[in-house]
Amino acid sequence: MDALAKQFSTLGLSVKPIAEVKHEAATTPATWKSSLESAQGVPSNFELLKTLVFKFKQAGPKSAPADGSVAPVALVLVARESTDTSLASTALAKKLGLKDMRLAGADLLQDVFGLDKDSLSPFALSPSSFPKTITVLDSNLGSTSTTNDAPLAVRASSSSASVIVSASDIVSYLRALEASATGVKVTEVDFVQLKGESASADPGKAPASKEKQKDKSLKEEAKIEGAKQIAIGVKKEVDFATWYTNVLLKADMLDYYSVSGCYILKPWSYNIWEAIQEWFNFRIKLMGVENSYFPMFVSQKVLEREKKHLEGFSPEVAWVTRAGNSDLEEPIAIRPTSETAMYPYYAKWIKSHRDLPLKLNQWNSVVRWEFKNPQPFLRTREFLWQEGHTAHLTKAEADTEVREILELYKQVYEDLLAVPVIPGVKSEKEKFAGADYTTTVEGFVPTSGRGIQGATSHCLGQNFSKMFNIVVEDPDDNSEGQDKRKIYAYQNSWGLSTRAIGVMVMVHGDNQGLVLPPRVASLQAVLVPCGLTVNTSDAEKKRVLDECDRIAKTLVKEGIKAKADLRDRTPGWKFNDWEQKGVPLRLELGPGDMAKNQVIAVRRDNGVKAPVSLDGLPGSVHNLLNTIHKDMYERAKAAYDSHIVVCTKWEEVVPALDSKNVFVMPWCEEEACEDEVKERSGQSSEPQDARAPSAGAKSLCIPFDQSKWPAIEPGKTKCPQCGKDAKRWTMFGRSY
Amino acid sequence: MDALAKQFSTLGLSVKPIAEVKHEAATTPATWKSSLESAQGVPSNFELLKTLVFKFKQAGPKSAPADGSVAPVALVLVARESTDTSLASTALAKKLGLKDMRLAGADLLQDVFGLDKDSLSPFALSPSSFPKTITVLDSNLGSTSTTNDAPLAVRASSSSASVIVSASDIVSYLRALEASATGVKVTEVDFVQLKGESASADPGKAPASKEKQKDKSLKEEAKIEGAKQIAIGVKKEVDFATWYTNVLLKADMLDYYSVSGCYILKPWSYNIWEAIQEWFNFRIKLMGVENSYFPMFVSQKVLEREKKHLEGFSPEVAWVTRAGNSDLEEPIAIRPTSETAMYPYYAKWIKSHRDLPLKLNQWNSVVRWEFKNPQPFLRTREFLWQEGHTAHLTKAEADTEVREILELYKQVYEDLLAVPVIPGVKSEKEKFAGADYTTTVEGFVPTSGRGIQGATSHCLGQNFSKMFNIVVEDPDDNSEGQDKRKIYAYQNSWGLSTRAIGVMVMVHGDNQGLVLPPRVASLQAVLVPCGLTVNTSDAEKKRVLDECDRIAKTLVKEGIKAKADLRDRTPGWKFNDWEQKGVPLRLELGPGDMAKNQVIAVRRDNGVKAPVSLDGLPGSVHNLLNTIHKDMYERAKAAYDSHIVVCTKWEEVVPALDSKNVFVMPWCEEEACEDEVKERSGQSSEPQDARAPSAGAKSLCIPFDQSKWPAIEPGKTKCPQCGKDAKRWTMFGRSY
Repeated sequence: MDALAKQFSTLGLSVKPIAEVKHEAATTPATWKSSLESAQGVPSNFELLKTLVFKFKQAGPKSAPADGSVAPVALVLVARESTDTSLASTALAKKLGLKDMRLAGADLLQDVFGLDKDSLSPFALSPSSFPKTITVLDSNLGSTSTTNDAPLAVRASSSSASVIVSASDIVSYLRALEASATGVKVTEVDFVQLKGESASADPGKAPASKEKQKDKSLKEEAKIEGAKQIAIGVKKEVDFATWYTNVLLKADMLDYYSVSGCYILKPWSYNIWEAIQEWFNFRIKLMGVENSYFPMFVSQKVLEREKKHLEGFSPEVAWVTRAGNSDLEEPIAIRPTSETAMYPYYAKWIKSHRDLPLKLNQWNSVVRWEFKNPQPFLRTREFLWQEGHTAHLTKAEADTEVREILELYKQVYEDLLAVPVIPGVKSEKEKFAGADYTTTVEGFVPTSGRGIQGATSHCLGQNFSKMFNIVVEDPDDNSEGQDKRKIYAYQNSWGLSTRAIGVMVMVHGDNQGLVLPPRVASLQAVLVPCGLTVNTSDAEKKRVLDECDRIAKTLVKEGIKAKADLRDRTPGWKFNDWEQKGVPLRLELGPGDMAKNQVIAVRRDNGVKAPVSLDGLPGSVHNLLNTIHKDMYERAKAAYDSHIVVCTKWEEVVPALDSKNVFVMPWCEEEACEDEVKERSGQSSEPQDARAPSAGAKSLCIPFDQSKWPAIEPGKTKCPQCGKDAKRWTMFGRSY
Repeated sequence: MDALAKQFSTLGLSVKPIAEVKHEAATTPATWKSSLESAQGVPSNFELLKTLVFKFKQAGPKSAPADGSVAPVALVLVARESTDTSLASTALAKKLGLKDMRLAGADLLQDVFGLDKDSLSPFALSPSSFPKTITVLDSNLGSTSTTNDAPLAVRASSSSASVIVSASDIVSYLRALEASATGVKVTEVDFVQLKGESASADPGKAPASKEKQKDKSLKEEAKIEGAKQIAIGVKKEVDFATWYTNVLLKADMLDYYSVSGCYILKPWSYNIWEAIQEWFNFRIKLMGVENSYFPMFVSQKVLEREKKHLEGFSPEVAWVTRAGNSDLEEPIAIRPTSETAMYPYYAKWIKSHRDLPLKLNQWNSVVRWEFKNPQPFLRTREFLWQEGHTAHLTKAEADTEVREILELYKQVYEDLLAVPVIPGVKSEKEKFAGADYTTTVEGFVPTSGRGIQGATSHCLGQNFSKMFNIVVEDPDDNSEGQDKRKIYAYQNSWGLSTRAIGVMVMVHGDNQGLVLPPRVASLQAVLVPCGLTVNTSDAEKKRVLDECDRIAKTLVKEGIKAKADLRDRTPGWKFNDWEQKGVPLRLELGPGDMAKNQVIAVRRDNGVKAPVSLDGLPGSVHNLLNTIHKDMYERAKAAYDSHIVVCTKWEEVVPALDSKNVFVMPWCEEEACEDEVKERSGQSSEPQDARAPSAGAKSLCIPFDQSKWPAIEPGKTKCPQCGKDAKRWTMFGRSY
């Protein structure tokens, strides 16, 4: 186009665009991209360039023009579309000392550039407008970028015209502008690094405190600019519930279903469940637990046999009353849990101490027809779980197993899902109906500031065995016949559900979508061919694709879940696709990389990009995946830890909760006091999200590890709520 | 006892019994055994000796005494209790040329021996009675037996007195009797070999034709003599339905449940399902199929969307109408299969040819509330299965997958379960409602003479995609926009259920209980310590037990599912326990075996017993397990093959069916003709078991392999039923 050539020549440059395209007006990246994909002459591996303009206030004297030059009125951000620039208005603003930075409105754009947002490009900057702006260049485009030489689509001062140029054309243009304006420089920013710094500096806190402002502009900011089609659409920190749903949908984990409260688990999430199953099965089988399957139906009589136990479930039981066109003689329940369905048979099977221990587990679905708002994975009417049910001769053996299973649950969360949990025991009020005691691993969702029960392992004692007559003769009693002492079996039950997947998504996901912990990812590393342009020969292209395929196969042979993405799409499209789906590691390979015998490894969890030699690649990838797991866990652990507020005065409790924390306090462990905690903390001013659970705090667990807090002095340390003697440090919080 | 010593001395022998015991009168092996176990002085590793007396008619001149000696009036069978002698009245009788052989009544016993059945022993034979009998000795006791030197409990002419003697005492006694009677010999019989010969010679036919006699004495024979407590209780050949139930219960595979038509799958059967899952998952994942989970509920509207498809399931659909105390606004179905539940989402997800193929599978339970008599595994109201649902761009691709999946199903049956199946295509009448065509693997249960559908793989063509609008634009059509040609997806669905486990039990089980094919056995080899007596020192005993444990661990390390049975029970009790449960290989180890650096391997499938060196034991066991699989498959294959009758005239059909066969005939493939086949064959005189399915024959499949039968000559070969031109050989039969 002549206009472009003219602009370049003004700066002493020449440009020869790869292509010049007219298309339908495109107002989103997705429509722009698809317009270009169907246009003639556009190379298949092009990427979009985004040009965002922000307004701001200067925060301090640091950035004020001391030399009398024009104060900048706008910030222009030039970046690859695939670069996550969501931290521009927060971390970047902070870095540059700018305040209240937000996207510029149409007026400002018109004033400075004479263009609307869908017509903007770096070429809209002229020697006259450039000094009035702070220009930020994605370092992934700039001088240090070595990784991607795909051509870029740039708006040609119109929403319906584009030029395809090389990255170096853009950089040259900006450098020439720098040269034309004394002292005004382009700022190169590494957004990946920025994100990493931001996350490690103050995880979760900044958004939390920001949200409290309830600033309308922030609400708007929740919608990530232009991202509707290709990213998550809203920010995690701002509209968490919508973000969560969007992540699940965009990552292809789940779909909504025509029966309310039921969801389709697509392979991308079901795979995670399979990974958990495989891991857990192996370990419980070593403990002598065997898998089995009990029917989903429970007769009314059996279900209602244990009234007290049933009370908790009764309002949620689904009843089958009809088969074909016939009404059943009596309604039949679908199991909400299987204690009463299984234990009559335990009584039948356990006739002697030789039949103990009996250790059965089943992987099944249960139905609890909740009438509260459902939420995928966390609260659904049908869900998948495992339920273990064991019977033992001695209490000691049962107690030991309860803790062994809880340890496995902890490992599922921490070693597989990279989600930190705190093991402990439930209060009397919160324990399983019919249990002697309930142990639990408690997780935490920093974004909502709520605790979440991860999995529970109950010691049922002899409560059910006495009811169902699960009894044997004492093998140590030598008396004869009828006089022999009877021992009622000591029973445990324990369960872990698909809820774990929801917790994992909430804890690790970011504004690009899902972030998968490597050990449960069904795809751990994806090879993406890069750097192929229209000028690349077919032979060269084939060489790159074949090498991607070969590398993927090598990795698979070494036990890494890898594949090459050889789809006929641009690298940027693929990057975005796999980022949304949370694949832990992207391995980019272009002709340049092949020459250097390397791939570029890009971590999903923190965006860090580094070349990795092809020599010993499987070992390097193994190490990287382990590092990713460790880093994800440690970040989440730091977030959890920093959100546990120690309260020794009641006045500290509600502010702690309102700042999205849970809290620990030395507690009297009395049920009436727990009711008071809930009542008093529920009166706080936090506005309610329709999908949020109740606002009152309940006890989450009494952590086994009490050593983190000052020792409780009997008779001296008091419960901050009621003033009675405290027994143990107990964690309370709002929860799911 | 003096009496015994006297008998021995009459024959010039002396005997010193290991023990002489008085006990409560015992009328079954189980009570006899337990009486002895609690008696003092009885070594722990003793076995019972059984002495059975049969009456018979002489069949031909062969066995008639040509030399003027006394004609034998009874057959005395002396065997280890653990030896399967159930073929005595059939295969053994045939071998010896005897007719109508059956257990002798009390009168005959009194006449010949002056004793009742619970007082008999070989020592009841005297030089005067011996020539009047045919005496058969279990070769496992006789001169060729090298494998088991456990002492034997023998009745001391009373039901309440026993002596414990060595096997050699018994053999010496019989040999001395031989010496006292000119020309009368003891016949040694290898019952294991007999069983093998019988199975391969004429599998299932003898019992079938015998059963037709409906002889009362045979019905009595169904109850295996004295076996109530320790074995299956009834004979497979006589009361198959009871036998089947008993095997499942005694093998601890299953229990009945309080909701009719639903059963508990205990670990011993669920393990088999897990083995099938693991095998099948691996292979379908290689084909690009992914696992997922769809909700169990289907809304009424969705379920009823495809009326025709629904017709088959509608009378069996279970409806949830109530949750807690609230009636639902509209009833919700529990899926009987998932086509209509899944395909609306396929329509949503499949937007472009790039989304094809879509290949999902799920492992789930479905509910079909049948009102017919339920039968464990074969017809149950809830059952476990996998259902695969795939969508393809081309018919060719769909067709290929249908057959690939069918091949996997064939392999599940043949390579895992050792059950032969015949792959073929269903007739139009028998195909899945809504399918273009249905392929199937058809199994056969020789004992009932019925075919059984093993698993089906359906090509749905475009029938469902047109109904649910699963459609993409033709990628090969270059026209633009609205004109682009649409392609409705080609769909398949395919399923395999826990029914496979029932077929496996029916095909392989015997009168000792379950026989597990090695590749799905969760325990492949069990080590049983043997040869420990009261005289064995504790150190020696520990050495044997430790060695059993060590060997088991060595086997486990080499990938064999093995364990040592170190329970405080007699070897005989353990033998029986593991035989009932069908463990493929028993490895016996006693002090003598340790000295010889060997174990005694006993095959469950045919009882063959042989020493195996401890050097290279894992390799030997691997080989043995493979041989067992092969032999089991080949026996079942021979049985299936011998029960397929080729019919070219209608007159041959009903006799074939009544002799427990299926049949093939050249068939016209017309639906009206199939109705006629069913009608006419259903009029046969076969009496109906209450649990038996309908007596009319239906088409089972049109086998893919037509080469086994004479080529059909177009226009010449006629359908025997209707006389029209035959198209293909088709297998018909009564079925489950």
